[in-house]
Amino acid sequence: MPAERLVLVSADCHAGPRPEQARAYVEPRWRDAFDAWLGDEAGRARRKAEHTGLAIYGDEALEDFGGLDAVRDGGMDGAWNSARRQAELEADGIAAEVIFPGGSEATVAPFDAGLMTYQYSQDPAVWRAGCEAYNRWLADFCHQVPGRRAGVALITLDDIDTTVHDIGALRDRGLFGGVLLPGGTGDHPLYHHPRYEPLWAACAELDLPVHTHSGWTPNYGDFPASLGIFLTEISWFAHRPLWLLLWSGVFERHPNLRLVMTEQGATWIPAMLAQLDQLYEMPMFGHLRRQLPLRPSEYFDRQCFVGASFLGPDECASRYAIGVDKLMWGSDYPHLEGTWPHTQTKLNEAFTGVPEAEVRQIIGDTAIDVYGFDRAKLEATATHIGPPSNAVVTATG
Amino acid sequence: MPAERLVLVSADCHAGPRPEQARAYVEPRWRDAFDAWLGDEAGRARRKAEHTGLAIYGDEALEDFGGLDAVRDGGMDGAWNSARRQAELEADGIAAEVIFPGGSEATVAPFDAGLMTYQYSQDPAVWRAGCEAYNRWLADFCHQVPGRRAGVALITLDDIDTTVHDIGALRDRGLFGGVLLPGGTGDHPLYHHPRYEPLWAACAELDLPVHTHSGWTPNYGDFPASLGIFLTEISWFAHRPLWLLLWSGVFERHPNLRLVMTEQGATWIPAMLAQLDQLYEMPMFGHLRRQLPLRPSEYFDRQCFVGASFLGPDECASRYAIGVDKLMWGSDYPHLEGTWPHTQTKLNEAFTGVPEAEVRQIIGDTAIDVYGFDRAKLEATATHIGPPSNAVVTATG
Repeated sequence: MPAERLVLVSADCHAGPRPEQARAYVEPRWRDAFDAWLGDEAGRARRKAEHTGLAIYGDEALEDFGGLDAVRDGGMDGAWNSARRQAELEADGIAAEVIFPGGSEATVAPFDAGLMTYQYSQDPAVWRAGCEAYNRWLADFCHQVPGRRAGVALITLDDIDTTVHDIGALRDRGLFGGVLLPGGTGDHPLYHHPRYEPLWAACAELDLPVHTHSGWTPNYGDFPASLGIFLTEISWFAHRPLWLLLWSGVFERHPNLRLVMTEQGATWIPAMLAQLDQLYEMPMFGHLRRQLPLRPSEYFDRQCFVGASFLGPDECASRYAIGVDKLMWGSDYPHLEGTWPHTQTKLNEAFTGVPEAEVRQIIGDTAIDVYGFDRAKLEATATHIGPPSNAVVTATG
Repeated sequence: MPAERLVLVSADCHAGPRPEQARAYVEPRWRDAFDAWLGDEAGRARRKAEHTGLAIYGDEALEDFGGLDAVRDGGMDGAWNSARRQAELEADGIAAEVIFPGGSEATVAPFDAGLMTYQYSQDPAVWRAGCEAYNRWLADFCHQVPGRRAGVALITLDDIDTTVHDIGALRDRGLFGGVLLPGGTGDHPLYHHPRYEPLWAACAELDLPVHTHSGWTPNYGDFPASLGIFLTEISWFAHRPLWLLLWSGVFERHPNLRLVMTEQGATWIPAMLAQLDQLYEMPMFGHLRRQLPLRPSEYFDRQCFVGASFLGPDECASRYAIGVDKLMWGSDYPHLEGTWPHTQTKLNEAFTGVPEAEVRQIIGDTAIDVYGFDRAKLEATATHIGPPSNAVVTATG
């Protein structure tokens, strides 16, 4: 009898439109502006340089990754090519995926809206036009493989009523992955501010999880050091909304709201929760304790999840401290630093010695629950393409 | 034979002038502005509230600390009263101290210059007038007990030539504690920017350590959550200059420059150095490795020190991972959360089971070296007031 196959869901994949695809999804009244934006290669390169000091996926970095030939040969074209993507994901054993922006060098973030929204100052209407173009493209991209692509939509923060309106439209477009909180809030206050209250209410009511995903940092300027600073600080800026929402009582007021923290590590969580619980117990926090009946770690248990891209043995060893049902595995496809195309090997490295029930939880069950995938459908799919349980779950590596 | 007494140096104490003292040290041309600033109690309260949501040393917090009676009775007056301070420090066993701003509710930071410099926008000349008034007061305060008070001076960042000029004057004033890097840089770039190069050169040449001390964060606004966010983020903002200086090659170009990180914990350091070393080894960091021949942890070993206020058993347990000769004990006098007036008990709690040579290094020797205290003089003082070695260094608590 062949080994049973596991339902594998990647809680962190990336995709984006090619320039000509993006253009088709930009509202006609913004097409001229889009063409000007796209044509301004020097400006886009300058903004990228001001952020990290150099392009991470520049030639030198790709050479160092050993991936330049692969990219030149179209090795990351699954970022925008639906059929190729689906074949590669299935060959990797993945039954369903959660899609974030940030595809490949061949794709674009319309008007820079994506992981870098609010990276610099721009007319709010332009940011929104970029988000809307991406969301429309994403909806169609997800519909290519119904029920197996949970697209995470982009939002703006300039006018929260508008944002709530845009969020209301996501279900109509068939997008069920939730929304990405911009990593930076531009000239607006951080996420503890009451102005965001309608945003949390809308996401809770529509059962759309809100996400943070590493990528955004302040601009450090075009200096050699900037890449080092960027990579040192990038995870902290992604973590930050956790305590902004927590201390401001967002989780208390909206018990159905879920926060998913993706591609920002996981081993930091136990120490951070211990710190937050310790602060909560401090005498001077009487005024906060009266507003927050639960301890920080209890709100985390109730409402937070971790998209642990290319989850490794270290994170796996922390699974009880974090919560086995809090962790979701992710492949980071099609990024070169992720597990693709060696996912089965990487899974085995991460999960050697872990009980099968826990593995199933982490690589599939939690994501099915968080995103509302159709379990029966994914189980049927996994029968054909899922990784064999005896290859992933072994007593020794 | 009585037990030998240890040389105890506090690497973290606080002091400040009372309003009328401060006024006397403000340059005459700034006196009217100072009076207006001092008289604007509503403005000062508002700025404080915009920072943390409430005054940490407000009545409620003090009640919770159990210290309100003590403060009402002048229990923190050692913040500005030199004779009282010296008596209390000596009763606590402390032979010498490093003085940071931020005394007590009875003292002021002239024009808000102190731990909160650049907390908000203000005429650069006013920031400088505040720093200069504080530095002049501090010099006189330190001279009250020659050789036993290392005052850490305030600087501004608006015009680096001016800052370098002001730093040059510190030795003439007898201030040998070094300088405090403003926790925020206002509208100026972060510390990796080349504009600060003359600052590092001046501090290296004059053998004045640069310090970070927790206190500064962005303003979160006057919300209940703000205190929680403030205390969650405060240490990170204090840590930040470590990697800004590191990645930008400041330690490489100025091997004599020393960075002291005070009152921001210490247990975070091994994991942070491991992360920085790991980034350094990444393939894409070729351009940084060519500029930085040492690994991040090697620069730390060479040039960084930790002012571990009220160092506890946890930090002590990390001493080999951090470096026994990197850690300096501090009492945080006269702050209520510090070890005063129970220093001997707290020392014993922290150092139970630690070899005496290591204890001596952490509670005195390193600070003597970093700040250039006169060792013979402090040894003579300790003969009278130092804590007995057999009370601090015990095999079991």
